[in-house]
Amino acid sequence: MRKNVHIVGVGTYHPTKEVSNEFIINHFKEYGNEDHVENLLNKLGRKTRKQTLGNENSIDMGVKAAEKALTDAGLNPEDIDMIISATDTPEYLMPTCALIIRNKLKAKNASSVFDMNNNCVGMVNAMDVASRYLKTDEKYKRVLVVGSVLVSPFAREDDMVTYSIVGDGAAAVILEVREEEEIRGMLGSRMYTDDDYNNTIRFPTCGLLNISKDSLTSYHRKMEWIPFDFSFLADKWSELIIKLLEEYNYQPRDVSHYFMSQFSKEDIKVTLEKLGAKMRQATFVADKYGYNGSASPIIALNDRLKKEAFKKDEIIIFCSVAAGYTMEALLYKW
Amino acid sequence: MRKNVHIVGVGTYHPTKEVSNEFIINHFKEYGNEDHVENLLNKLGRKTRKQTLGNENSIDMGVKAAEKALTDAGLNPEDIDMIISATDTPEYLMPTCALIIRNKLKAKNASSVFDMNNNCVGMVNAMDVASRYLKTDEKYKRVLVVGSVLVSPFAREDDMVTYSIVGDGAAAVILEVREEEEIRGMLGSRMYTDDDYNNTIRFPTCGLLNISKDSLTSYHRKMEWIPFDFSFLADKWSELIIKLLEEYNYQPRDVSHYFMSQFSKEDIKVTLEKLGAKMRQATFVADKYGYNGSASPIIALNDRLKKEAFKKDEIIIFCSVAAGYTMEALLYKW
Repeated sequence: MRKNVHIVGVGTYHPTKEVSNEFIINHFKEYGNEDHVENLLNKLGRKTRKQTLGNENSIDMGVKAAEKALTDAGLNPEDIDMIISATDTPEYLMPTCALIIRNKLKAKNASSVFDMNNNCVGMVNAMDVASRYLKTDEKYKRVLVVGSVLVSPFAREDDMVTYSIVGDGAAAVILEVREEEEIRGMLGSRMYTDDDYNNTIRFPTCGLLNISKDSLTSYHRKMEWIPFDFSFLADKWSELIIKLLEEYNYQPRDVSHYFMSQFSKEDIKVTLEKLGAKMRQATFVADKYGYNGSASPIIALNDRLKKEAFKKDEIIIFCSVAAGYTMEALLYKW
Repeated sequence: MRKNVHIVGVGTYHPTKEVSNEFIINHFKEYGNEDHVENLLNKLGRKTRKQTLGNENSIDMGVKAAEKALTDAGLNPEDIDMIISATDTPEYLMPTCALIIRNKLKAKNASSVFDMNNNCVGMVNAMDVASRYLKTDEKYKRVLVVGSVLVSPFAREDDMVTYSIVGDGAAAVILEVREEEEIRGMLGSRMYTDDDYNNTIRFPTCGLLNISKDSLTSYHRKMEWIPFDFSFLADKWSELIIKLLEEYNYQPRDVSHYFMSQFSKEDIKVTLEKLGAKMRQATFVADKYGYNGSASPIIALNDRLKKEAFKKDEIIIFCSVAAGYTMEALLYKW
């Protein structure tokens, strides 16, 4: 018998405020780079994005997504044994967001709660960690992974990338271990890191050491994005995915669907071409929600599952990239 | 053959500035609660504490501890396959501290880097996660876990607890997987959570949502500690340790040494009494370094290993508690 880790529930949450491309392009007229921004939005595939009204934090959004995932799974909060919060915008560093989420959900049997941060690969990484616990420790049957991203309050008004591409939102997924004859569910993961870009993105820009200093302003505490050429994405994503597939004796032609980082539509397209796949084999949702970082591959999964379920034995890939950069791909068999 | 995960290197770093109890007690005369503070320092077992001069961040300290752990293990940075940074005072939320540490160490073969935060059980939790990867994935042979705690810049001057008990510092540990006949090394873990105390400690007090607002002051961005009765520690720690030992068919009398949270000497003493152990079976170092949160059990381990190594088959326990609260205990066989 094999210990297989299955996705048994998915939920997402998006705030109600919708910000159009028109608003964004108009905003950047003040800085004289509206044409540049329009090109960027076209390349990355944006139409609108969802943002908070300034009264919600990442825990509030995460709890709403978690409640939907529980409903989707037909489970109660008491059925959860472990909660992992995976966000790079944690409302608190003490206590952990996972502990506050446990309290808000009344998930009183979750003995283990902790936070992870791997920026935009955070949820993929946390699902991987959850899977390792479920496969190696009989105390855990079900793990709730919550990814919540609140970037709009920290985007500088003069930053073409963060101000224009992100959306606020959250996703949650419930993983369950089952003893079965055949191997399926979460099969494995692979990561790749090249830290040459470690200086390109900084949040908070001033560093935590300086966060409490009154001599600094809001601008220093927000996010810094120094533009860089991210044309490496398609080469490195496709290499990583091919190596992961090889590790489990699969080839790209065996993959039925890809849930990629929702950062860039153009780079997903080029990645899929390199893998010999069609664009319809990837779900893209950042045109309507904006880029939800860590949560984005799971928001794409939720969108697809609401339209059409996967059949038994279908192979899917989750794959994302995080600041600096590091990448992770996950292999899953339905 | 068994896949065993061994501790193969440990390193610590403490800044040079030493702050005496006398200084702390004198400081609180201004608030009229110097007697209360003196009692607290006696109960928790403080004499001096190490703090930064304000020019070091948690990554700087973590890198120094990691370099010592590599030397201790007789390894080069290229021998590391994964880096986990476990801190509740991450200098950056983007990119991850682990990625910046990889860059500074030139650990160019570390394909996997991510951050974890479980407050004061952070390093224990990260060692547990590292162990799950090493036991389930052949791509990883050695994981570097770095825990670094910088609290002094965020302690409010009128807060008797955080201002008086903490020290800044870092620890690093290298875990290596080996195929062996007998079961040893990292045997298992157990966690326990009671979120009733989730409102007692907050950092940043204002929440991340408000961190960039210029209408708030330094005081709002620092740490809040609402005093609470933590007399549950000894009962809950001893219960957790006994249950973990039972899971692996051991009893408290089989344990040779305890590496506990260095928060409170008195609570370690009562815990050990409940377990039928003597105080000499726990290493206490917070009297000289202050409380180093996440890093504190590993700083205690480092202190003990520098004096005396463990013999083959000796059983030890790592155990700590985090804000809100959650606890974790780890069982290790040398």
